[in-house]
Amino acid sequence: MAVPTVASQAAATPVVSVEVDTPTYLEVPDFQRVAVIGDYAAGVTMDDFELACRGLYRALTIREKYMRLAFQRFPRTASQYLRQIEGESFRPEEQLDPPKEGEDPFDVKNLPKNLGYVARMKDALITLSNTNSPHFCNTYTHRRLKFLMSKFNVHEMLNEMEEMKEVKKNPHRDFYNCRKVDTHIHAAACMNQKHLLRFIKKSYRVDAERVVHNLKGKEVTMKELFQSLNLHPYDLTVDSLDVHAGRQTFQRFDKFNAKYNPVGASELRDLYLKTENHINGEYFATIIKEVANDLEEAKYQYAEPRLSIYGCNANEWNKLSNWFVRHRVYSPNLKWMIQVPRIYDIFRGRNFVPHFGKMLENIFLPVFQATIDPQSSPELSIFLKHVTGFDSVDDESKHSGHMFSTKSPKPEEWDIAKNPSYTYYIYYMYANIAALNQLRKQRGMNTFMFRPHCGEAGAITHLLAAFMTADNISHGLNLKKSPVLQYLYVLSQIPIAMSPLSNNSLFLEYAKNPLLEFHKKGLVVSLSTDDPMQFHYTKEPLMEEYAIAAQVFKLSTCDMCEIARNSVLQSALSDEEKRHFLGKDYLKEGPEGNDIRKTNVPQIRMAYRYETLCYELNLIKEGLKSE
Amino acid sequence: MAVPTVASQAAATPVVSVEVDTPTYLEVPDFQRVAVIGDYAAGVTMDDFELACRGLYRALTIREKYMRLAFQRFPRTASQYLRQIEGESFRPEEQLDPPKEGEDPFDVKNLPKNLGYVARMKDALITLSNTNSPHFCNTYTHRRLKFLMSKFNVHEMLNEMEEMKEVKKNPHRDFYNCRKVDTHIHAAACMNQKHLLRFIKKSYRVDAERVVHNLKGKEVTMKELFQSLNLHPYDLTVDSLDVHAGRQTFQRFDKFNAKYNPVGASELRDLYLKTENHINGEYFATIIKEVANDLEEAKYQYAEPRLSIYGCNANEWNKLSNWFVRHRVYSPNLKWMIQVPRIYDIFRGRNFVPHFGKMLENIFLPVFQATIDPQSSPELSIFLKHVTGFDSVDDESKHSGHMFSTKSPKPEEWDIAKNPSYTYYIYYMYANIAALNQLRKQRGMNTFMFRPHCGEAGAITHLLAAFMTADNISHGLNLKKSPVLQYLYVLSQIPIAMSPLSNNSLFLEYAKNPLLEFHKKGLVVSLSTDDPMQFHYTKEPLMEEYAIAAQVFKLSTCDMCEIARNSVLQSALSDEEKRHFLGKDYLKEGPEGNDIRKTNVPQIRMAYRYETLCYELNLIKEGLKSE
Repeated sequence: MAVPTVASQAAATPVVSVEVDTPTYLEVPDFQRVAVIGDYAAGVTMDDFELACRGLYRALTIREKYMRLAFQRFPRTASQYLRQIEGESFRPEEQLDPPKEGEDPFDVKNLPKNLGYVARMKDALITLSNTNSPHFCNTYTHRRLKFLMSKFNVHEMLNEMEEMKEVKKNPHRDFYNCRKVDTHIHAAACMNQKHLLRFIKKSYRVDAERVVHNLKGKEVTMKELFQSLNLHPYDLTVDSLDVHAGRQTFQRFDKFNAKYNPVGASELRDLYLKTENHINGEYFATIIKEVANDLEEAKYQYAEPRLSIYGCNANEWNKLSNWFVRHRVYSPNLKWMIQVPRIYDIFRGRNFVPHFGKMLENIFLPVFQATIDPQSSPELSIFLKHVTGFDSVDDESKHSGHMFSTKSPKPEEWDIAKNPSYTYYIYYMYANIAALNQLRKQRGMNTFMFRPHCGEAGAITHLLAAFMTADNISHGLNLKKSPVLQYLYVLSQIPIAMSPLSNNSLFLEYAKNPLLEFHKKGLVVSLSTDDPMQFHYTKEPLMEEYAIAAQVFKLSTCDMCEIARNSVLQSALSDEEKRHFLGKDYLKEGPEGNDIRKTNVPQIRMAYRYETLCYELNLIKEGLKSE
Repeated sequence: MAVPTVASQAAATPVVSVEVDTPTYLEVPDFQRVAVIGDYAAGVTMDDFELACRGLYRALTIREKYMRLAFQRFPRTASQYLRQIEGESFRPEEQLDPPKEGEDPFDVKNLPKNLGYVARMKDALITLSNTNSPHFCNTYTHRRLKFLMSKFNVHEMLNEMEEMKEVKKNPHRDFYNCRKVDTHIHAAACMNQKHLLRFIKKSYRVDAERVVHNLKGKEVTMKELFQSLNLHPYDLTVDSLDVHAGRQTFQRFDKFNAKYNPVGASELRDLYLKTENHINGEYFATIIKEVANDLEEAKYQYAEPRLSIYGCNANEWNKLSNWFVRHRVYSPNLKWMIQVPRIYDIFRGRNFVPHFGKMLENIFLPVFQATIDPQSSPELSIFLKHVTGFDSVDDESKHSGHMFSTKSPKPEEWDIAKNPSYTYYIYYMYANIAALNQLRKQRGMNTFMFRPHCGEAGAITHLLAAFMTADNISHGLNLKKSPVLQYLYVLSQIPIAMSPLSNNSLFLEYAKNPLLEFHKKGLVVSLSTDDPMQFHYTKEPLMEEYAIAAQVFKLSTCDMCEIARNSVLQSALSDEEKRHFLGKDYLKEGPEGNDIRKTNVPQIRMAYRYETLCYELNLIKEGLKSE
């Protein structure tokens, strides 16, 4: 399919007249298109428009490069436009290529043009500043996003009946039997509170006399353990279990973390929610398998639970993979991820690690070794086959004070007690994952996606770091604060796993959640539960998450099915599974890549999204034509 | 337990100093009370305060009388205060009692005082006006409600930890195993959309060749029926079924009503959701029994479904009770109600009834006859044992133009095509139910509660009519618009079944729903689903309703358990069931009437509610002292 083009007559005035070639697709019903004639760059001068486009182009090429290096994803459509831009006017990047045959190596015509930055020495380091650029880029992207929002509203008003018609005509498929993936869920909170309560009571009925814990050096039975806590499981209720987030946790990540302890007792967290304990994590494995069983029965739901690797010592991977293999914690409906908490400061404070480099070594070296010689650690090698990616987790609102730059100490030199910044963590995780993936790709092994928590709180630099390094992210709330980044996330179609119920308990009231706004503007959002144990009430947490979003934001069936489709795309489900759930051409972009019989997403919606994205990318191309 | 008193020194200034005697109860933990010293009547003059109190007193005595006449409920605490007021200064009402012994029948001292109304002849009818009274009553009650809101907020801040402590200490009981009643649900929409879809497909697999319908005089099989609709059930999805409310139904009751027709076909509504059809309502009975089965399995959930009696002909009761008995539509988890749609205008237009009186006769006469001679209609008599009340239903925003007054035509005279007003309907339903209840009470039979839809939309006079006639109501949204009525509903503790998800699809966005505000101010609110088929997504609609309210309004466990307790109180569950679910003293008001082991509602919350209500009632007593 041809990429739709926008024919423009570049002019010295900010008003540029634009015409859209209406593309023709197979199997997209007629619908009313929102065409904008003129004024697309209104409000910014032509010069600013061109500068903004240049900045956006640069940013996109940087992400493209970083994604390629780590075997992560970058959308084909965006790449096509970037190539067109380069073909027409640009050199992709200033590289030290030798001059080609026939080129005069002393020709000044090929020198790049003036960037217009101001260079100053500051703290013994040259720093560049460009006071205009961020400003006009903000203005331009802000206007584009506002336009995207209004355009979606108009599209919806004009075409919602037509979209519904497609959906109603589509046999056998509705929202209930569309595949949906819980793209962000922590294994230690993947069961709901009632499930955990039931499990604790059941375990006591069966195992009261079993030795399950080491209490101050002494082995104790479950009965003795509960006695030491002055508890009897028979009396426990959801209230006394006290793992649900309430009003008390709002804006209090510390109080929220304490909710992982049933009845406030870390001993019970150890016993029921940990992979390493006196019973080798048997209960935790059983609970997870029960959750998986519910998903298998529900049939259309999948989840991507996170297990922790802390980087505190080199043996963690062996223990975790031993747990995984021993208890055969496998389900076709689960795809595993590794989460790394950003708590170097705690380990350093207790002298568990000498410097940050050691933590990174504990996290990555065992995986490299198992990749180099799988036979040397068979359980880990098996486990790694089921690991699909890495997450970086912790309270983003904690500020480190450190600003990552080329001047920053290397990880081996980082031996102070203070935590490195978010960006520092992200960069070194990305760099290791990229190297690891190159090695594994060579060997024909599965590679890992980097999918950090990002933009739940804290500085917007987090979202910048993830823009360069992450295949996709969780949360992304703070994109609200930066139009430039938000627009870049639209252009590069970076999937965002959003959890409005989690946010509602921690950072942002439900009705203020930007989910609907993001969805309308064309960000690729999915819905996820984060922590059913803390946030959800019903037996089907993911359905609860969808139902509440549908009710509060008045989502249509099309919206919900589109979000479900996004979740499958974002997930680490295999190519085979994605072909089965989305259609064989799911890797193609636009309506061609959609099979309504499987996704229940109308082709009109797909065409709207695709044409809208192409229009925006084309604008950048137009802005760079004069170069 | 003594009613707590407020000692006041009445003064000529609006600032009245008040002290609260802290009551002592058994088994209420210490908590911090919000005492207000002074200024309770600030903002209104002493005269206005007294006038407002007189008006509120009058209103409460009117409701008390009407409830007594119909064997409906009026709270004991309010009655106690009314008696105290009367003992101290007042005669309850001006009645034409003969003079008591020793009284001078010509004594002018006993003449009532000047009401201050202005009497004028208008349209050949004397009308009374009192321009001051409503105004100052609005001001006063508005201030009281604002105060109640702030007081609850302060109480919550001071005591939420203490309340939670009680709840956590309470063994075996949490929100999940508190009894909750779906206090407002229509039988024809009591299954969710997925359930109906599954049922239709299943029925086709089993019954394709069965004669199920009469199509233009010809008996047809299910297969033929679906063929005539150009449908095959195998292809049906939730989308093509199209019974769910969407954005299209907001503010469009007409479009909402059309959603009762699966696939837009009234034939399918007849076949699956009606008690009267070619298969004697067998499918509808089966679906309801499946819903009941789910409730029985969930164990802690009950529902009060409404079945329709239209008043179109005299045979409806026999048909309905035949359906009920034939299919044995019984479940311990269901309590039945009769809903009467306010659609006289349609029946009159088609000449089904000669006048409104005939409609009332069709609705009530068969019930009177079965009460007088149960053997004459055994099925109806059996059915009536399971009927617990009457509901009045339809779009309240339709305006009739008629103003009910003593000048209004009698029902037998009402032979025009125009519909009578809401108030007219309500009055005649109440009057018939009151008479019927007196008869049935005499015979030791169960009586019926009047529980109309009221205040979902339309004029606030609806809420006034229900204040005088209804045991409890559904919706009540418009109490937002009248502080006087809202305050009266607080004082007389009239239960309100609220359905924010239904409102969200029809009349009011979720976040703007007054549920939380009403709850804080001390209105007795419960949560109900209204129409799961149209509004809900999950398998447990009532839990979905609670979960969403909990999430959006950040309800605490105490709030949720209090609302669940309210739902049991509001419901028509039997005395035996209520004793079992709420505690043996549930009829007592205040903390005495609560058994936390059964309700999980903390005694601190009960004491707060009780003392707050007593304080408000006592204010009225104070205001009337000077009389």
